[in-house]
Amino acid sequence: MKKTMFLALLLVLASLPVRAQQAIWGVMPLVSPEIHADNSVTFRFAAPEAGSVRVTGDFLPVRTVTTDFGSFDAPGEADLTRNGEGVWEFTTGPLQPELYSYSFIVDGLRMPDPCNVFQIRDTSTITNVFLINGGYADYFKVDDVPHGTVSKVWYHSPVLDMDRRLTVYTPAGYEQGTERYPVFYLLHGMGGDENAWSELGRATQILDNMIARGEVEPMIVVMTNGNVDMQAAPGETSAGFVPPTTQLPGTMNGMFETHFPDVVNFIDSTYRTVPHKHHRAIGGLSMGGFHSLHISKEYPDMFDYVGLFSAAILPREGATSPVYDDMSGKLQRQFATPPALYWIAIGEKDFLYDANKNFRATLDAAGYPYEYVESPDGHIWKNWRIYLTEFLPRLFKK
Amino acid sequence: MKKTMFLALLLVLASLPVRAQQAIWGVMPLVSPEIHADNSVTFRFAAPEAGSVRVTGDFLPVRTVTTDFGSFDAPGEADLTRNGEGVWEFTTGPLQPELYSYSFIVDGLRMPDPCNVFQIRDTSTITNVFLINGGYADYFKVDDVPHGTVSKVWYHSPVLDMDRRLTVYTPAGYEQGTERYPVFYLLHGMGGDENAWSELGRATQILDNMIARGEVEPMIVVMTNGNVDMQAAPGETSAGFVPPTTQLPGTMNGMFETHFPDVVNFIDSTYRTVPHKHHRAIGGLSMGGFHSLHISKEYPDMFDYVGLFSAAILPREGATSPVYDDMSGKLQRQFATPPALYWIAIGEKDFLYDANKNFRATLDAAGYPYEYVESPDGHIWKNWRIYLTEFLPRLFKK
Repeated sequence: MKKTMFLALLLVLASLPVRAQQAIWGVMPLVSPEIHADNSVTFRFAAPEAGSVRVTGDFLPVRTVTTDFGSFDAPGEADLTRNGEGVWEFTTGPLQPELYSYSFIVDGLRMPDPCNVFQIRDTSTITNVFLINGGYADYFKVDDVPHGTVSKVWYHSPVLDMDRRLTVYTPAGYEQGTERYPVFYLLHGMGGDENAWSELGRATQILDNMIARGEVEPMIVVMTNGNVDMQAAPGETSAGFVPPTTQLPGTMNGMFETHFPDVVNFIDSTYRTVPHKHHRAIGGLSMGGFHSLHISKEYPDMFDYVGLFSAAILPREGATSPVYDDMSGKLQRQFATPPALYWIAIGEKDFLYDANKNFRATLDAAGYPYEYVESPDGHIWKNWRIYLTEFLPRLFKK
Repeated sequence: MKKTMFLALLLVLASLPVRAQQAIWGVMPLVSPEIHADNSVTFRFAAPEAGSVRVTGDFLPVRTVTTDFGSFDAPGEADLTRNGEGVWEFTTGPLQPELYSYSFIVDGLRMPDPCNVFQIRDTSTITNVFLINGGYADYFKVDDVPHGTVSKVWYHSPVLDMDRRLTVYTPAGYEQGTERYPVFYLLHGMGGDENAWSELGRATQILDNMIARGEVEPMIVVMTNGNVDMQAAPGETSAGFVPPTTQLPGTMNGMFETHFPDVVNFIDSTYRTVPHKHHRAIGGLSMGGFHSLHISKEYPDMFDYVGLFSAAILPREGATSPVYDDMSGKLQRQFATPPALYWIAIGEKDFLYDANKNFRATLDAAGYPYEYVESPDGHIWKNWRIYLTEFLPRLFKK
């Protein structure tokens, strides 16, 4: 009974050459990406038969792609070089600290790095990721600090007559304590869902690290799903494994904004919150900035802190929801008692730059107070993670 | 201000042909996999330049692979056929209800289905998944039933002097109520982590559905990380994005078992549990069955329900932990008051079949009561999901 086949398997595994282990465990015997001491990175791909291997990622200079529908920026590409053993390699120059995304292109086909199991989905694209530590990117690391809890929670919306899912971050110590906490509602952009901020956004790590350093008040963070036609992220609903291609309907028809008190009521009745405007914030990226703008003006007594990260400003043409009517009257009511912080941030290359400039002009003309941050780059996650690290320390300090 | 670039982009997207949408959103204009009414499935892959495209998955007949280290079963493979437009296709026969995994092999390179964003990592292999509804596989669906909460929670282990992560399922209604619940500790196998049961194991869906149907008592389910050298799943620790290749050390050295009261104490002090043996269960697959066996006999007053799913029985050769000493004396103490349920299940083709047979002979010889389930197939997730649906209804009913 002592020598089971299990023991035998363990012994065999321990003595296997890496290439044979690969056959059993699926592990490629290469290291990719390899991050060097100077923050240059080597990518490797084993493909003796391939004719060409390229890497595409946001650490490479963007290239401009021109189509019949206009030009847009796309991630750069670089060639890997084949060595004698059929392993292809490419090494970058030293990279700035950041969370980067990439894929390989092998004989024209986009595919993940088989050596790197770390992938994140953004809308319908899955890419590999790696992290260069340092600077603000250190907020993105899992560090040896007290960790909050991240929960996937279902709530019922009477307004939508629907069960829906959201992601809740409770700070370290919440479960053991009796204290009440302020709440920040953090909203995703078009094509995203209730997972976006905790995955590509690194919100969990940013919160853990900034709270541990004393830079941010301990708070509950609620990450909703802004697509009102969906119960939850793709694959997490009773629709089954339906590809994320049908997310546009309902996202900007006023119903998300209209149902939002259902979310706040659920959170206030389920968690130890301070259920008062002074202790509530709302912010989001792109469509989530649009939602934050409209929700905060629809319910002027609900949020004292508002963050618009690369926000879409106006509704879709033809949207007829009352939510989008009488913008100036509603802003006037909201700013009659100005929010403790109304914070607008956008990248100088963002396609929404002019819309935000116009919106600021509206606020300026009416004398409504806000703060404005302009950053380099465009409509990209790099900016939104940075905006989060800049917005969070401003919350709940009045 | 009315016609922002944002509006323009939306209008452009709405009118784009699918192939141009792909360039922006990364969506392939194909449906794959397509599940037909008779449960046959068509896989599609666009690769005009490829020389061969194959699909490999657990819905195909297994093939036997022979290496210098012996023969083992591997998922089957099938050829896709190229049509005139460079799209490759393969259609299965009608499939039995099940959660299936697959990948493509394009000119010899394994890669995911770019049309299917639904992927699950198993140790260091990422595969696409799809679900054929019906029969027991209906437990694996997200259905229109009340949903429990799934949380990633960190606890401190004084025994290990380490912060570690676990996954906690609390049943629907937990957050709103005041009731106390029984707790089931559900453990993963070698190469797994605290995510395994809620991802490949579909434990969340199984619990939601079985509780909703009244087949299973509402309970808290705690899914630990059995690799004591790790804080959490790969990428979720302060070690950073380290590939899952170093998981073996420490997994079977007795320390996971020794620290387990730290987990139980944390759960009992954090959640509304019934902190008593009669209301505690432990079970796991493979290495998790091994852990369940040893933990339940080390702490005979802790668990009244024990489940060994395709369990490894003995420790690694050379393991010197006191945990593995005096097996017969400890079993005698445990069975002095026999557990309410000691449940052993294994597949008839499992490489651990003989080890389990020998262990049952030991129990039989001593007259210790247990229940035994033998199923077809081997050491595979299909069996472990089924065992979970069979074990859960037996818990906390005495």
